[in-house]
Amino acid sequence: MGMFRNRDEVTEAIVLARIHAGLSWAEVASRLGLSKEWVTAACLGQMTFSAEQADALCGILQLDPAAKPFLTRPPMKGTFNGRPPDDPLLYRFYEMLSVYGPAIKELIAEEFGDGIMSAIDFSMDLQREPDPKGDRVRILLSGKFLPYKVF
Amino acid sequence: MGMFRNRDEVTEAIVLARIHAGLSWAEVASRLGLSKEWVTAACLGQMTFSAEQADALCGILQLDPAAKPFLTRPPMKGTFNGRPPDDPLLYRFYEMLSVYGPAIKELIAEEFGDGIMSAIDFSMDLQREPDPKGDRVRILLSGKFLPYKVF
Amino acid sequence: MGMFRNRDEVTEAIVLARIHAGLSWAEVASRLGLSKEWVTAACLGQMTFSAEQADALCGILQLDPAAKPFLTRPPMKGTFNGRPPDDPLLYRFYEMLSVYGPAIKELIAEEFGDGIMSAIDFSMDLQREPDPKGDRVRILLSGKFLPYKVF
Amino acid sequence: MGMFRNRDEVTEAIVLARIHAGLSWAEVASRLGLSKEWVTAACLGQMTFSAEQADALCGILQLDPAAKPFLTRPPMKGTFNGRPPDDPLLYRFYEMLSVYGPAIKELIAEEFGDGIMSAIDFSMDLQREPDPKGDRVRILLSGKFLPYKVF
Amino acid sequence: MGMFRNRDEVTEAIVLARIHAGLSWAEVASRLGLSKEWVTAACLGQMTFSAEQADALCGILQLDPAAKPFLTRPPMKGTFNGRPPDDPLLYRFYEMLSVYGPAIKELIAEEFGDGIMSAIDFSMDLQREPDPKGDRVRILLSGKFLPYKVF
Amino acid sequence: MGMFRNRDEVTEAIVLARIHAGLSWAEVASRLGLSKEWVTAACLGQMTFSAEQADALCGILQLDPAAKPFLTRPPMKGTFNGRPPDDPLLYRFYEMLSVYGPAIKELIAEEFGDGIMSAIDFSMDLQREPDPKGDRVRILLSGKFLPYKVF
Amino acid sequence: MGMFRNRDEVTEAIVLARIHAGLSWAEVASRLGLSKEWVTAACLGQMTFSAEQADALCGILQLDPAAKPFLTRPPMKGTFNGRPPDDPLLYRFYEMLSVYGPAIKELIAEEFGDGIMSAIDFSMDLQREPDPKGDRVRILLSGKFLPYKVF
Amino acid sequence: MGMFRNRDEVTEAIVLARIHAGLSWAEVASRLGLSKEWVTAACLGQMTFSAEQADALCGILQLDPAAKPFLTRPPMKGTFNGRPPDDPLLYRFYEMLSVYGPAIKELIAEEFGDGIMSAIDFSMDLQREPDPKGDRVRILLSGKFLPYKVF
Amino acid sequence: MGMFRNRDEVTEAIVLARIHAGLSWAEVASRLGLSKEWVTAACLGQMTFSAEQADALCGILQLDPAAKPFLTRPPMKGTFNGRPPDDPLLYRFYEMLSVYGPAIKELIAEEFGDGIMSAIDFSMDLQREPDPKGDRVRILLSGKFLPYKVF
Amino acid sequence: MGMFRNRDEVTEAIVLARIHAGLSWAEVASRLGLSKEWVTAACLGQMTFSAEQADALCGILQLDPAAKPFLTRPPMKGTFNGRPPDDPLLYRFYEMLSVYGPAIKELIAEEFGDGIMSAIDFSMDLQREPDPKGDRVRILLSGKFLPYKVF
Repeated sequence: MGMFRNRDEVTEAIVLARIHAGLSWAEVASRLGLSKEWVTAACLGQMTFSAEQADALCGILQLDPAAKPFLTRPPMKGTFNGRPPDDPLLYRFYEMLSVYGPAIKELIAEEFGDGIMSAIDFSMDLQREPDPKGDRVRILLSGKFLPYKVF
Repeated sequence: MGMFRNRDEVTEAIVLARIHAGLSWAEVASRLGLSKEWVTAACLGQMTFSAEQADALCGILQLDPAAKPFLTRPPMKGTFNGRPPDDPLLYRFYEMLSVYGPAIKELIAEEFGDGIMSAIDFSMDLQREPDPKGDRVRILLSGKFLPYKVF
Repeated sequence: MGMFRNRDEVTEAIVLARIHAGLSWAEVASRLGLSKEWVTAACLGQMTFSAEQADALCGILQLDPAAKPFLTRPPMKGTFNGRPPDDPLLYRFYEMLSVYGPAIKELIAEEFGDGIMSAIDFSMDLQREPDPKGDRVRILLSGKFLPYKVF
Repeated sequence: MGMFRNRDEVTEAIVLARIHAGLSWAEVASRLGLSKEWVTAACLGQMTFSAEQADALCGILQLDPAAKPFLTRPPMKGTFNGRPPDDPLLYRFYEMLSVYGPAIKELIAEEFGDGIMSAIDFSMDLQREPDPKGDRVRILLSGKFLPYKVF
Repeated sequence: MGMFRNRDEVTEAIVLARIHAGLSWAEVASRLGLSKEWVTAACLGQMTFSAEQADALCGILQLDPAAKPFLTRPPMKGTFNGRPPDDPLLYRFYEMLSVYGPAIKELIAEEFGDGIMSAIDFSMDLQREPDPKGDRVRILLSGKFLPYKVF
Repeated sequence: MGMFRNRDEVTEAIVLARIHAGLSWAEVASRLGLSKEWVTAACLGQMTFSAEQADALCGILQLDPAAKPFLTRPPMKGTFNGRPPDDPLLYRFYEMLSVYGPAIKELIAEEFGDGIMSAIDFSMDLQREPDPKGDRVRILLSGKFLPYKVF
Repeated sequence: MGMFRNRDEVTEAIVLARIHAGLSWAEVASRLGLSKEWVTAACLGQMTFSAEQADALCGILQLDPAAKPFLTRPPMKGTFNGRPPDDPLLYRFYEMLSVYGPAIKELIAEEFGDGIMSAIDFSMDLQREPDPKGDRVRILLSGKFLPYKVF
Repeated sequence: MGMFRNRDEVTEAIVLARIHAGLSWAEVASRLGLSKEWVTAACLGQMTFSAEQADALCGILQLDPAAKPFLTRPPMKGTFNGRPPDDPLLYRFYEMLSVYGPAIKELIAEEFGDGIMSAIDFSMDLQREPDPKGDRVRILLSGKFLPYKVF
Repeated sequence: MGMFRNRDEVTEAIVLARIHAGLSWAEVASRLGLSKEWVTAACLGQMTFSAEQADALCGILQLDPAAKPFLTRPPMKGTFNGRPPDDPLLYRFYEMLSVYGPAIKELIAEEFGDGIMSAIDFSMDLQREPDPKGDRVRILLSGKFLPYKVF
Repeated sequence: MGMFRNRDEVTEAIVLARIHAGLSWAEVASRLGLSKEWVTAACLGQMTFSAEQADALCGILQLDPAAKPFLTRPPMKGTFNGRPPDDPLLYRFYEMLSVYGPAIKELIAEEFGDGIMSAIDFSMDLQREPDPKGDRVRILLSGKFLPYKVF
């Protein structure tokens, strides 16, 4: 364990090491053979690496191997302390949900019935969408529909 | 104005009228020539109808014309009172943001620089994504990237 | 829709009708051929009835058929407004989670890896457990393990 | 006391020592002759060890004996600061309670009358439930029913 | 059911009926053969009457018998919505707990070990304590000690 | 001042020193000639010692005399940050107040008129109450009644 | 009781009746022989009238005598729901306390020792203070110092 | 800047230095030729010293001159984090405002019209008011009335 | 008073009456000879009309004269309940303050010293600012600088 | 990276370095050829510097070049943790919004239709406005109007 007391310290080390290594998140992900979305979330302490992935990450970023046991255990997730986020970029997503949420609820109910879109069996893809009026951020969310069990 | 005192009462009338008319939200939207996502949000009191759209909606749902002035004025938006939503379907989106938000922030910064993805110059599209392991909800978010102005 | 303006009014009518009918929740559930846990939650406005179940419920409780469209649409769920519950019986469950939650997290991680216990593909069973030192409440929770998708 | 200033520091040491020792929580519990659920909660700072249990734990994990006075005194319990938990795995339990709580209240009232299910004279058991459609987490909660005293 | 839609309306009726009847809470309790503390709490919607007690109360206060089914079912309890109380008299008790709470915790631990003082197997007695420097309120709280179960 | 920067550090030192000295809180109080309730609260940073009491305490616990100026100045009191407490033992008291509070308010009004029970001209006494069905915690609260001044 | 269901309805009636009667709060107070500060607070539902005062008030404002039982019982007090006030005039007082509060605490400790300034054995006086640079509001607060009891 | 990183560290140093110097707040204020109320607030980090006052304070308390730049810049003010204060002495003022606030609002409106009492062009004076029934704390608040501008 | 019970009902009537009258807020303001910003705020229940202004407004909007006493008394102001606003348009202003607030604080300190920009001796002006890249909203805020009084 | 672990430490260093350098924010901005409003916000950790700007800033303030990677990456923005600000100067802006916000909403709707004033394509200008009755703070906000997209 040595130099790290908890996952937050490992995350801070990763953030600094990536800048030091001069790599983008997309490059780190590419070297790991995974999506940039998952890898970035995992590096920031929200996902769990396999032992092989953790080894590879330590190699790519020249991280102390003491980080490995922290990288391979499921972390306490979530970053908002039960509040809307303060950061303007992140707040916009909360606002989209606040404005369009009831409509999303109606449309999923109409198409699928009572249930949810999984946030676990879930993936996302973020791309630049070129547009003459100004490029757009395109985010594709894909989550398994899970129907409420009747019992 | 007559039978309605505020927009909430109009929304409640729309919700009941749609069921009474036996129309899905997608059908209402189709008759208006607009997306189901925007129309549902607008019917639930989050968007503003043009005069023509309001007339058409009143005709489709047999709404009292007294609803029209309420439909054509920008409403007070937002439905969460500054909290995460309680409903499980809606909460999953808050959770996605809480878990993947910092990664989204990093990746937009990496691709675009400092700015936000607009929640105003924004559209969404919700579809059923067939999958042998269980169909998925596919939501495409598209928002204009807005760079912070340096001044 | 007539006599009901929203699902809350339907719920209030069900609560009164059940007392008037002199039936326990277990009896209502038995007549519907479903568990008492699901039926009670559904009657209290947290689950969605099929058309047949809604018809049967209206018959059992002599409910006005105007209730049916409300019973068959997915409701906005959740009853706590983002807070711990005030009621002592309900608070105890929040407290169990506050005290044992981190241990549950560790043990599920140890047994299953990173993921969650579903609250959707989920069932519960509540029984009296006779005990000479005082009968106990025995609650069995069963939820599908959902591993985080790596992508 | 020496190397520890408070129980939180002891907990952090236990967490690191267990990984270092290469033991699962279930193995630690087994060596103590207690359930994995209670032992994990106790190690994480929510329960009180007897002097003998504390000695045994220090031996199993090679903990500094200075930890003992902290392990044998009742800790300040609870981990949520009066909010719902942020972590998705833990939040699901809060959500179950928010959705099924009023039904649990009704069914305990129907079976037992007015009172609560104890969170103190309480035990839990967490198991993997094999299922061809995906293994399940099975949690059995057992708490003494405590009737409200009439006085 | 008739004239009452829920327990809150019954409580409001009791409050008015008691004033109309010209009875103190102590007198109502005396006629029921129970303590003034329990009876007042029960009348205010926090406790459950037996069928006989409910009949007696209806007689004493000339309440409509439609109140009875509400009086005999366990109510949703708690009156603070998860906050400290605003009323100065009630706030003082919250403050006593905020100031003396950690000391109470230490002293119960010292005397009994790890556990709680029950708020269910609990009674209280409130008396005027004559004092030449100004009479005092004397409140005796008695709750069963419940040790944490080790399992 | 030397080794202490604020009262919290003094409190932490007292907590450790008492364990090191092998004294119960009741013994510390006894040597000071004061009640265990007041002394424990004072040691935990909620009350103010006289110069003599502070000297005595430093002697009893072998505290560094640099603690004295902190012990003799009125501290910032209160330990809950405006929330209900998380600890189960402490929460039960909040719950008692939430459930019985309105009744306490009515009964004090009935007996004394409009005013409060002082939390300042206040004392408490905590005892073990032997009971064949399980010993009880008996807490006696005594506070001066303070009538609202009419002016 | 008749026309009023609770104290809030009585307060609303008083507010309207005073305007209808064309009297200032100071005039109402003067006719009652009490201070304008206490009378206004009492009329707004924060203080308790004696039977004679209630009769006089009903006469002055031509209030329905059904108001009397509500006026003579101690009300649930406090108007902020545990938050800072929104109204700018009221917020300024919260802000004064937030800015000068720790200094007030130090100065009372320096002059009186550990204790509080009573908000019950308390009076206030609000006057216009003529000033050539703009008249000032002068508020004199007088509260009995209550020392913490050592026991 | 040297030994101080921010204003909070300067405040902590002042608090310790004053005790070390054996001076009361009133004495410090007297040497500065200012009121004890303003000086104490300023020393606690809520007000801004002029260069001369800062020099004088450093001399009186033997503070390191590195404190001066911090003392002469307007600090971020306010000490409550948007909540009511926990400390009983401070809470009483919040309570006075919660109970008497609406009356204060009415009386200022009656005397001055629509506006506020300034918390900036403001002074306060705290005195011991001898009283045979127990000395009182007398606080005089004086703030300029600021009428809302009509434009 | 007649048809209105409080200011909120008057506000609702104004909102409907303006639409019915087919007048813009700017036109209403113009007829009153005041700015559109102040008049709109006043009509929405945040400012106080003089008797003459109230008469004029009643005439312009054909309001029942019973509204007048409500229009001429200072209202309880503020519309956010101590939270950030939910509406996206309003939230942007909260966000500007959250992002630029500390800079505003520094710059006012640099230019004026310690004090505030008044929100009372304050006016605002909102205009459309034509811009080939998209018109802009231009808001000019003007508030008197109020220096903290040293006393 | 060396001497800085995160952006907050860089911000703290900038704050101290500016004082040490004896420069006003306006002077720092002038040397950078940018507005004082943007530069101050950026220095306080709310905006992103280009590489050239970061180099220039490090030169102007004699900052360690290790600060540069932190200065050129988009920071997590926002400083209020989802609450109104405590500082009186900052709170006034929140209050202006709470009081005038609904009017701003109406007037933007009247002039532009449904949309927002951007907080991203945004600039502000803060000036001293000389006034014989006391100088004023004049703040000009300019934000692009963004209409809601209909889709």
